[in-house]
Amino acid sequence: MSLDYEIHDLGEVVLQRGATLRGCKMAYKTFGTLSPAKDNVIVYPTWYSGQHYDNEWLIGPGRALDPAKYFIIIPNMLGNGLSSSPSNTPEPYNAARFPLVTAYDNVRAQHRLVTEKFGIEHIRLVTGWSMGALQTFHWGALYPDMMDTIAPFCGSAKCSRHNFVFLEGVKAALQADAAWDNGWYKSKPEKGLRAMARVYAGWGFSQDFYRAELDLKTLGYSSLEDFLVAFWEGFFLPKDANNLLTMLWTWQNGDISANEVYGGDFKKALGAIKAKAYVMPGQTDLYFPVADSEFEVANMPNAELIPVPSIWGHFAGGPGTNPVDVDFLDGKLKELLAS
Amino acid sequence: MSLDYEIHDLGEVVLQRGATLRGCKMAYKTFGTLSPAKDNVIVYPTWYSGQHYDNEWLIGPGRALDPAKYFIIIPNMLGNGLSSSPSNTPEPYNAARFPLVTAYDNVRAQHRLVTEKFGIEHIRLVTGWSMGALQTFHWGALYPDMMDTIAPFCGSAKCSRHNFVFLEGVKAALQADAAWDNGWYKSKPEKGLRAMARVYAGWGFSQDFYRAELDLKTLGYSSLEDFLVAFWEGFFLPKDANNLLTMLWTWQNGDISANEVYGGDFKKALGAIKAKAYVMPGQTDLYFPVADSEFEVANMPNAELIPVPSIWGHFAGGPGTNPVDVDFLDGKLKELLAS
Repeated sequence: MSLDYEIHDLGEVVLQRGATLRGCKMAYKTFGTLSPAKDNVIVYPTWYSGQHYDNEWLIGPGRALDPAKYFIIIPNMLGNGLSSSPSNTPEPYNAARFPLVTAYDNVRAQHRLVTEKFGIEHIRLVTGWSMGALQTFHWGALYPDMMDTIAPFCGSAKCSRHNFVFLEGVKAALQADAAWDNGWYKSKPEKGLRAMARVYAGWGFSQDFYRAELDLKTLGYSSLEDFLVAFWEGFFLPKDANNLLTMLWTWQNGDISANEVYGGDFKKALGAIKAKAYVMPGQTDLYFPVADSEFEVANMPNAELIPVPSIWGHFAGGPGTNPVDVDFLDGKLKELLAS
Repeated sequence: MSLDYEIHDLGEVVLQRGATLRGCKMAYKTFGTLSPAKDNVIVYPTWYSGQHYDNEWLIGPGRALDPAKYFIIIPNMLGNGLSSSPSNTPEPYNAARFPLVTAYDNVRAQHRLVTEKFGIEHIRLVTGWSMGALQTFHWGALYPDMMDTIAPFCGSAKCSRHNFVFLEGVKAALQADAAWDNGWYKSKPEKGLRAMARVYAGWGFSQDFYRAELDLKTLGYSSLEDFLVAFWEGFFLPKDANNLLTMLWTWQNGDISANEVYGGDFKKALGAIKAKAYVMPGQTDLYFPVADSEFEVANMPNAELIPVPSIWGHFAGGPGTNPVDVDFLDGKLKELLAS
């Protein structure tokens, strides 16, 4: 069996919060061919618990992210089970002892991948859904001279207080299971994973989505309970609890200004993003509401607010669940890349 | 010590789902004096986990609910720890074996209290917040000739699918705690209660509330974490888990048409509500969104939709947390009672 992705060995990575990941691995997948001028690069980070193949729905012939035109790099987030994670890191930084990783750490590591491995100095577009959007904003703020455009969708440059609280609920549900054992579980904390899935279910899709019964009528589940079990519990059960908690912490502590460059000045960090930006919140997203994107756009020099007109809640942005939304996003990305 | 409330013994109550509560108790508190003509009655049911004293913020001299003018009855919901509940019912229907109770059961029992105990045949107003609104709608549909007005606020006549899912998350967080032990806990399932509190925290107040930091600036908590511990965990920890689960089931299965009168025809049940109704959803309520109230009002013959202009989410409706919202509600209730 051959893997469908590559590993870049980053060696010793000193993380923002102090720990060092030795032999830090970044898993990534590329699509298309890097042009001789190295001027056709798109970077497309992953989302909470997603792995590179969960990003592929936006890539394809005729799409904005067309491998015939662009060299598309999907870097896997640290903690997602493919890049260095609690589940795959050797002792002593394994499992519950995996260090705290920020979005800043992720994007610095991705920058090393892009520059060291490929010698890329310029990027056409950075884009991503949800935590992928968080990393996209970080790219824009940390490497403002490096890219032409960014398109963060259904995500934010800084975890809002409400979003933080929503995630506290998700985390608490998982950790209420004694089988979790502070991260030293011998077998998966099944009740906790199922509980976190049920907590997530109300947040992921909108009130309008559930009212319209799209879980049944469009997604084809046989009942609401079937949707909760087959879609939601089925989504979380295969995932490693410590990996989920690592990424959750990354999310909760996401903030493009929480670093030595901006010293916590969020407006300054937003103002430093030079790239032409399409900021695309979902119109009915319950944890990345449009109002947060409005604030970001108002403080970015070259950004446009483009809400995705959808009742799919957070899933307006991915992972390809609703074809209508995919076409909307794809159209906007084409427009942005053509500009 | 004397109790500040009364108990009405309902005797044998056959519940809608088949069980019989023998020696069923309804705890209630009254304010003001029943007029000789018995024409000054207001019924004001309780909300999820609330007890009668949690309703008192809307009552007072100069308020719409003025005890100098009205005889106000607050019946405690079955399962709330004062009326018959898992925590106070003797064997064999105690604890985890407490039967399923519907909102229909509650309102039929309240009707018995009102008619048998007080000989009341006519009600000026039924009003309530949240699950109190659910019971208010039930009063309107089940006893349509009995009252002049109803004012359900931040609640619905039928639990929406999204609301159901939100509650599944709350329930799953509690039940993930092994100490819950399927309801046969010997001491309180503390981790589960704290987890359900954290899940609830994201739902109870709106994104705008958290963005504006009203938890700190208005409610005076010292940090977001302090708000989660002191307000939210502090709210749920003293409550009995089985009581909470009983009321949660009542909520999830609330539907004014789920009975022999309407046979599941929701529009027919809404259409049967003769009372002049002010339906008042919170503008930013995350689990009782305005759209659900719109549908109800559109199908009620004599109803007006009056969203509460507030960023306090579900707490726009209670329990007196935000004085501005209290004044808004109070003003509308005065208007309704004067009509």
